[in-house]
Amino acid sequence: MNDWLRTGIGASDADSITLMGRDLANDLMGKVTLTELTFLLVQKRMPSEQETRLLDAVLVSLADHGLTPTVLAARLTYTGAPEAIQGAIAAGLLGAGSVFLGVVEDTARFLDEIIAGESDPAAAVAALVESGRRVPGLGHPVHKVEDPRTPRIYAIAEETGLLGDHLRTLRQVAEAHAEQTGRKLPINGAGVAGAALADLGFRPELLRGLALLTRTAGLLGHLAEEREQPIGMELYREVDERARYEPPAV
Amino acid sequence: MNDWLRTGIGASDADSITLMGRDLANDLMGKVTLTELTFLLVQKRMPSEQETRLLDAVLVSLADHGLTPTVLAARLTYTGAPEAIQGAIAAGLLGAGSVFLGVVEDTARFLDEIIAGESDPAAAVAALVESGRRVPGLGHPVHKVEDPRTPRIYAIAEETGLLGDHLRTLRQVAEAHAEQTGRKLPINGAGVAGAALADLGFRPELLRGLALLTRTAGLLGHLAEEREQPIGMELYREVDERARYEPPAV
Amino acid sequence: MNDWLRTGIGASDADSITLMGRDLANDLMGKVTLTELTFLLVQKRMPSEQETRLLDAVLVSLADHGLTPTVLAARLTYTGAPEAIQGAIAAGLLGAGSVFLGVVEDTARFLDEIIAGESDPAAAVAALVESGRRVPGLGHPVHKVEDPRTPRIYAIAEETGLLGDHLRTLRQVAEAHAEQTGRKLPINGAGVAGAALADLGFRPELLRGLALLTRTAGLLGHLAEEREQPIGMELYREVDERARYEPPAV
Amino acid sequence: MNDWLRTGIGASDADSITLMGRDLANDLMGKVTLTELTFLLVQKRMPSEQETRLLDAVLVSLADHGLTPTVLAARLTYTGAPEAIQGAIAAGLLGAGSVFLGVVEDTARFLDEIIAGESDPAAAVAALVESGRRVPGLGHPVHKVEDPRTPRIYAIAEETGLLGDHLRTLRQVAEAHAEQTGRKLPINGAGVAGAALADLGFRPELLRGLALLTRTAGLLGHLAEEREQPIGMELYREVDERARYEPPAV
Repeated sequence: MNDWLRTGIGASDADSITLMGRDLANDLMGKVTLTELTFLLVQKRMPSEQETRLLDAVLVSLADHGLTPTVLAARLTYTGAPEAIQGAIAAGLLGAGSVFLGVVEDTARFLDEIIAGESDPAAAVAALVESGRRVPGLGHPVHKVEDPRTPRIYAIAEETGLLGDHLRTLRQVAEAHAEQTGRKLPINGAGVAGAALADLGFRPELLRGLALLTRTAGLLGHLAEEREQPIGMELYREVDERARYEPPAV
Repeated sequence: MNDWLRTGIGASDADSITLMGRDLANDLMGKVTLTELTFLLVQKRMPSEQETRLLDAVLVSLADHGLTPTVLAARLTYTGAPEAIQGAIAAGLLGAGSVFLGVVEDTARFLDEIIAGESDPAAAVAALVESGRRVPGLGHPVHKVEDPRTPRIYAIAEETGLLGDHLRTLRQVAEAHAEQTGRKLPINGAGVAGAALADLGFRPELLRGLALLTRTAGLLGHLAEEREQPIGMELYREVDERARYEPPAV
Repeated sequence: MNDWLRTGIGASDADSITLMGRDLANDLMGKVTLTELTFLLVQKRMPSEQETRLLDAVLVSLADHGLTPTVLAARLTYTGAPEAIQGAIAAGLLGAGSVFLGVVEDTARFLDEIIAGESDPAAAVAALVESGRRVPGLGHPVHKVEDPRTPRIYAIAEETGLLGDHLRTLRQVAEAHAEQTGRKLPINGAGVAGAALADLGFRPELLRGLALLTRTAGLLGHLAEEREQPIGMELYREVDERARYEPPAV
Repeated sequence: MNDWLRTGIGASDADSITLMGRDLANDLMGKVTLTELTFLLVQKRMPSEQETRLLDAVLVSLADHGLTPTVLAARLTYTGAPEAIQGAIAAGLLGAGSVFLGVVEDTARFLDEIIAGESDPAAAVAALVESGRRVPGLGHPVHKVEDPRTPRIYAIAEETGLLGDHLRTLRQVAEAHAEQTGRKLPINGAGVAGAALADLGFRPELLRGLALLTRTAGLLGHLAEEREQPIGMELYREVDERARYEPPAV
């Protein structure tokens, strides 16, 4: 035994398995949900019932958005390698970068800066508006007036007593933006999720990870559907038939 | 509107988001857990309270096993690309193949064959034993007498009234093996998980997917730890220092 | 220094880097091509000029097939995470499983069995035909009469004196199939690639890996194009617009 | 035929396959190497013999660095899922992010800014030195005096007449740094590769992709070795045995 590598997550011996300092079989199995276990694994403490309720609501809100690019990538990958479902899920997670799930994280970081006192909502918004950049967490291509997830998260945060600095500041940001531009943009579902997760104590670097967890559930649904009602080959055939080949000059 | 691609999972318009035929904001958020949503996405119906309890117990049992090869792959990947956490998680899932998580699926398929009447437990075990192959779901390198997860899953299945054909047959398989070989092997945690998930109505092809969902939660814990207390570079340095270079003859 | 881990691939110290027993800077850089290095890394010896020519021809033949499912998966992943190109490439490789690149490997294994004397071409074909299964390496959905890659690989194998047992047996297999069924199927590009790689001394388990190497080159071409002339979002929009939502009964 | 999706890379019909406007079988197979094809796919023109020589030298220089974190991730992934080699290769690529292969790209971008006239070498170095940041492309943890790849790339670039603005500017950067700090740092292999690839006309966003191509070759070597002489399980066992479990307080 030396000091080479240390971990606080799990260990096992002949008779028992320990996870986060708890006996897996007796203290966790049958007593906590996957959502509670996730909170414990990341934050190193058990969540309260209220925290679990808000976290579940946020995870449920982010699970799936239909046949998005990342879902299509997973289903097309499954078409080629159905025997290796881990590859299809991995492919479906790999597109969760700056363009798609980045907003969850970007919103939390933006709010963190305001909360840390580096700026106030109005000034932070003004700086973005002036430079022609988007305000993280505002606007949605489909839900132009209101993203239905947003009032629901705020309501649950109120009910659970967990409406904290991030959710509050995000509202001020939206109001400041409407005042400054005369154009009311909705707080989008990714933004409200980022604010709520930050209020739940998760660090910005891990927010995308939480989104990936729930996206994995969504991908399972899509791969179950792809088995029964495949669209991957159909999509490929349509692309192959309709794509126009314009080779470079030789 | 034509018949090109069909999906039953999700859709959205300006005012609402629908998931599995439910209104996401009003019928799912705040009302179902991630575990319940996963059941709904894969099985197309809401689970009962009892089913949710057993499913959560199985998912919790599979979430993490310490610094396993797949966890090490994820943490080493994070070392090189911390800005792309989706890549580290994907890397941690890609090793969940035939050697590691395959047992969950293999056990369910093996039990399916017996239940379908293609064989009986004693004959199915005898065929494997004679040909020198392992019986799926039996034996564990660390838990040589009893895997602590196994009696717990059986107890919860009893309590919830969900102890079905797969779990029952798995017990018969273990008994037949002990009789035939004179050597009592424990039912392992992966095997009991496969049997319980099959009793919950999940098809064998998706069992590995459910295991990947809960492994994603485990990986989040490890990546949160890697941020604070990194071991990736340390592990690399030790390997680099101690590995012996034996080049091929030139 | 102990016997813990051994590797024959690479090592370095303050002044030099060694790869496969050669000095990287002086013996390999500027002297060997990527193709030659790949042969050396896998087979532990330098290829002859003739072997390199055949290997390059096979790799070039497998590099790209237009907007296939794996390419679409890579481009859709890039759409979401352009900052992490490694993720888009990984996604593009993950669909190279049993359905797509599997034929390269399957053909080599099938020929190996015949060459090992377990069967002769006519009997091996008859067994597949009777059971209604496809003969690995024969037939193509687009190139119904002749796959243009096939005669080219045979010609280069002749020219280089490397037409070996696998390529010869594959021809006998095609002839046996035509005789037995009265239907002439072309030897496809994946099959001829598998036979040629096996004649070059590569083991079946690594053939898919060689195909993945050259697919990575193809993916680079597609990602370079996606940067300048993106199709990922366009494809998503079309799917989103035209897909029909048929939710499960609630 | 409409204007939906366009591609210039590949297409095929019953009799022929076209790649980058060339006939695959007759104009490319047997006539170009994988390296030349890669240049063609990314830059849309065939390279000269000299360009190919420099590109091959750079690719060879980046192929492998022994048992690095990304290689370990690939070998550990292979341990769990040997039947899905595409997953092990993908895992080995996913760690090629900001910490490891990022330097190739960072160096090219840094040199681009100087060449574009936004700064001169001395001023650009001074800005970094003052703010305590590292100069991209300088310094190496093992090759403290000279990275053996660097003089070799410069020599080949001279011989081929391809020593361009990026390689020249990188040398000025190294000299400016030595003058300003009194400490001579070597130009490292990743930095010189980035400069040479940029001089060959590749855009910074794709440099990491080229490095991933050649890393795939390196990974194939490691996976071939892992099959014959596995280290994955051995590494796991050592970690499992020696890691110290320090659970969080409950």
